[in-house]
Amino acid sequence: MRDVAVVGVGMTKWGELWEKSLRTIFVEAALLALEDAGLDRIEAMYVGCMSSGLFVGQEHLASLLSDYLGKNPVPTVRVESACSSGGLALRQGFIDVASGMSDVVLVGGVEKMTDVTGCEATYALGTAADQEYEGYHGLTFPGLYAMMAKAHMAKYGTTREQLAMVAVKNHENGSKNPLAQFPFKITVEAVLNSVLVADPLRILDCSPITDGAAAVILCPADMAKKMKKPAVKIAGSGQATDTIALSSRKDMTWIESTHLAAEKALSMAGRKIEDIDFFEVHDCFTIAEICVTEALGLVGKGRGGKAVEEGLTSLSGKFPVNPSGGLKAKGHPVGATGVAQAVEVVKQLRGEAGARQVKAASLGLTQNMGGTGGSSVVHIFEAM
Amino acid sequence: MRDVAVVGVGMTKWGELWEKSLRTIFVEAALLALEDAGLDRIEAMYVGCMSSGLFVGQEHLASLLSDYLGKNPVPTVRVESACSSGGLALRQGFIDVASGMSDVVLVGGVEKMTDVTGCEATYALGTAADQEYEGYHGLTFPGLYAMMAKAHMAKYGTTREQLAMVAVKNHENGSKNPLAQFPFKITVEAVLNSVLVADPLRILDCSPITDGAAAVILCPADMAKKMKKPAVKIAGSGQATDTIALSSRKDMTWIESTHLAAEKALSMAGRKIEDIDFFEVHDCFTIAEICVTEALGLVGKGRGGKAVEEGLTSLSGKFPVNPSGGLKAKGHPVGATGVAQAVEVVKQLRGEAGARQVKAASLGLTQNMGGTGGSSVVHIFEAM
Repeated sequence: MRDVAVVGVGMTKWGELWEKSLRTIFVEAALLALEDAGLDRIEAMYVGCMSSGLFVGQEHLASLLSDYLGKNPVPTVRVESACSSGGLALRQGFIDVASGMSDVVLVGGVEKMTDVTGCEATYALGTAADQEYEGYHGLTFPGLYAMMAKAHMAKYGTTREQLAMVAVKNHENGSKNPLAQFPFKITVEAVLNSVLVADPLRILDCSPITDGAAAVILCPADMAKKMKKPAVKIAGSGQATDTIALSSRKDMTWIESTHLAAEKALSMAGRKIEDIDFFEVHDCFTIAEICVTEALGLVGKGRGGKAVEEGLTSLSGKFPVNPSGGLKAKGHPVGATGVAQAVEVVKQLRGEAGARQVKAASLGLTQNMGGTGGSSVVHIFEAM
Repeated sequence: MRDVAVVGVGMTKWGELWEKSLRTIFVEAALLALEDAGLDRIEAMYVGCMSSGLFVGQEHLASLLSDYLGKNPVPTVRVESACSSGGLALRQGFIDVASGMSDVVLVGGVEKMTDVTGCEATYALGTAADQEYEGYHGLTFPGLYAMMAKAHMAKYGTTREQLAMVAVKNHENGSKNPLAQFPFKITVEAVLNSVLVADPLRILDCSPITDGAAAVILCPADMAKKMKKPAVKIAGSGQATDTIALSSRKDMTWIESTHLAAEKALSMAGRKIEDIDFFEVHDCFTIAEICVTEALGLVGKGRGGKAVEEGLTSLSGKFPVNPSGGLKAKGHPVGATGVAQAVEVVKQLRGEAGARQVKAASLGLTQNMGGTGGSSVVHIFEAM
């Protein structure tokens, strides 16, 4: 297998983009990535999208998008793995280039979520859970993560305030990200006084409904070296699955798929978790980030709440988590999130992250997951 | 890239399977394929499915299916490309093994289409068209293919009877396939007198709504050689896209994506179309098979109708097309079709096709397409 590099990244402003369609925002992000790479020709395209069928009534998505990007007859693949669709599209693009099948591959992620009502969006997102054992009995994602939060609080003494601190930190970072949906700061008090969604989670514990797209351009590392701009190598890729029903897990507070995916990615990269300088992780709810820092091995089991309270995960902390603002402040167009994480890591490794730049960063990690951890994808990026 | 072989195939009886769920039929097919291969351990899984979101309210599909197959934490990918989802899943599994990323890969295709009303199924299938330029203006797939048929008849003099002969031939073959949804013969008169769907297409010109699944097991060819059973090599893989809106094409009768995908697959295999002994192609409507035989280069432009009339595509003809009964008689669970084509070709190349066996077959080709040809995937299989 060949070494693979990221040579271009693109992302549009995220938010409630009522004046734009799914195809428009995808093409905008893809063109930004191509422009950034200084390339026009691609040989294959991968698109991460969770549910364009339920959100905008459109399947056959990758062909539609290559059509509107003007790239037919290029081979295109739409990849779906709920909220980890973007990370998985990146992994498939990586395998395509690594295999020697294609040289230049565009990987995009997109979701247009605001063209339906709130109830319809909640239903669509609920299809990431096990419909027969969870959805049909009334469970939604805030409810599932609320149970994980309750379990974590009961088992490890994690406090309501520590959950809030995750949101405060990510909004602090997101206030420095001009493309974020909510680029402003919030306080612990604001989180604690916000509307209750599913006890103990309040609205400011939850990532929002977002329209958005992101894209990256991949090519062999040898080709990237000949280009006159900084490139970033994908040093490791790991994926794992777990039961999609939360009730089938041994421990509701432990995200095994993330743990295994990280092990695989680190093994491929020949690195340990301590070697990584910063992390973009899947904070769809505040409790998720706490569980993920534990599953990655950044802290011991049950220590995730304490870690955020002690500032270890802050931008200037020991291991910065979500410098971009995370899903919480940047937004969470579900299929785009995994690709946007890669966009942020590449910008950081190139030293182009402005006010939210992580100092002296040479290794970054992305962790993207579907549902309550039924699937996880981890990538490790290294400055070349 | 490594050579890749198919070492196991499985398919359940197709039809209106009201007593079974999507996860059940997938697991049945997957277990048959694993049993056929004599393997238990897999390293990755690819699932082709068009719209489990709209048909059964379930996304995050590949993780769900690996869970129910008992294969967690194996990495799993759901691939969507409308009706070519199955063929594309096969291609992604092929790339995965060829790259060296995985050794043993399960590729499955599945669709559960009868849990919704006919109107809902027509809507779900319509999401394979360009919703903004086709669907919202009332076009459905029978309507789109009817326009292609009208254009082919006007341009080349293809007759209404020739269209019917495609269905008659495929039911003749399907009558010999015990797993087919409609394993019985029909006549030209029956087709001509059946209910009109979209002029000139009648109900017996259309593939049915089907529940079904199919699966294959892939591994490196070197590993397959050491196994004590006949294996089949994937000699070539090609994919291409075209505009998904029919109105954007230069010629409504010409399926360019199939033409290009076949060129790529033949080039990879180092073969010409004349070398191939038989074909499993995407006859979602009778006119589709006629257009596809032309796009593959089996006959000249406009000669597809004449070819079926002259018996060239019959089981005992010069180049047998759809020995399995095709989508028309075997059924068309959209995401499963591309994988089932591979199952048929492997059975034929192993000499296990019973009454529908193509004589002295050593090379077979599958052609699977999405929408009206917005995407096409072609594979070439060779007995080892």
